[in-house]
Amino acid sequence: MTGRTEATMKRHFSEELAGLHGKVLRMGGLAEQMTRRSVQALVERKRDLLGEVREMERQVNRLHIDIDESCIEILALRQPAAKDLRFIAAAMKINADLERIGDQAINIAERAESLLSVPLLKPLIDIPRMAEIAEEMLKGSLDAFGTGDADLAYENIRKDDSVDQLKDQVFRELLTYMIADPKTISTAMDLILVSRHLERVADHATNICEDVIFMAKGKPS
Amino acid sequence: MTGRTEATMKRHFSEELAGLHGKVLRMGGLAEQMTRRSVQALVERKRDLLGEVREMERQVNRLHIDIDESCIEILALRQPAAKDLRFIAAAMKINADLERIGDQAINIAERAESLLSVPLLKPLIDIPRMAEIAEEMLKGSLDAFGTGDADLAYENIRKDDSVDQLKDQVFRELLTYMIADPKTISTAMDLILVSRHLERVADHATNICEDVIFMAKGKPS
Repeated sequence: MTGRTEATMKRHFSEELAGLHGKVLRMGGLAEQMTRRSVQALVERKRDLLGEVREMERQVNRLHIDIDESCIEILALRQPAAKDLRFIAAAMKINADLERIGDQAINIAERAESLLSVPLLKPLIDIPRMAEIAEEMLKGSLDAFGTGDADLAYENIRKDDSVDQLKDQVFRELLTYMIADPKTISTAMDLILVSRHLERVADHATNICEDVIFMAKGKPS
Repeated sequence: MTGRTEATMKRHFSEELAGLHGKVLRMGGLAEQMTRRSVQALVERKRDLLGEVREMERQVNRLHIDIDESCIEILALRQPAAKDLRFIAAAMKINADLERIGDQAINIAERAESLLSVPLLKPLIDIPRMAEIAEEMLKGSLDAFGTGDADLAYENIRKDDSVDQLKDQVFRELLTYMIADPKTISTAMDLILVSRHLERVADHATNICEDVIFMAKGKPS
């Protein structure tokens, strides 16, 4: 192989990795938007946002397949070693978590759909707060992936506790509504489920952070 | 490289793949046992089974790390192509799903822990049935992985609908209990959560089936 051909191959490889990187970040941006919009539809009583969430899901599903195929192709053709290999392995796992965040956002949108046709029991405070932290965690996890920053990943993992606490708080509060007035049960249940879906978004963001740490440090966190 | 060294390397490689295969099946067996035991603890009111579930979780967590490391190591050292590459990629994904099935079993064990200290509302019928189908699906998905049988994988994916129907049935029935008597809300909620955790076990089994199809056919299902 001539020096020139080798240089061209190397450039192509780094372009492929950069392309993969870009796709994962684009998918992450979509998953984040889906979560934000589904909660916004519920809180601001805007049904038309739910259509946007469904449209984004189709994009996420296409990207999910696309990223998986890119990873396999790069592994097959380039036989990458060490750092690049860990990067591709992390991309495959992050891809799976992002797709599942999309699923959670769809679950939230379904609950929102049914909650939009009934009055809410009270102004929602803890659920938007949970959504905010979960989105922050997701954004942080993607930033950490973007820069390979393990410290940023650790920092975001720590936020998961607040999400769990808020989930418990939502549950306890809605339980008192249900006990006081059984007519509220169905609405309360839907809200409890929304909080659990948000908890899972935060869990997936935590998984992504763990993958970033593995990618950066070369061993499982 | 002499013919003999090459033959030895090939033998080592196929031994490594067989070893990886065995570890994934062992982890699958543990995840299945954890699900079975956690539901059995609830249905048969046997608290001591919950300790077994927790012990198995420690083994699952160790295997999870072990399998991930084996995959990366094989990718790095062997630079496998085509079929072997898809097998390793599937093993990595299945590993993640199995670990999450273990998490779901732990969630069920936690609900069982709290349900064991109160009388159940009624004899449990739908929940054990859900557990049975979810375990069947998981077993089927692992058999399909063991033999690379895409048809068996498709067959098991179809069972997911029954699990979803049972989950809806559990929800509707428990809702009537809660409405009739708010004192039952807390117990009913715990049972609803158990049914949702089982639904997620079935979802992960479905993911595994999809990975087997990808492995067998070389494209996403």
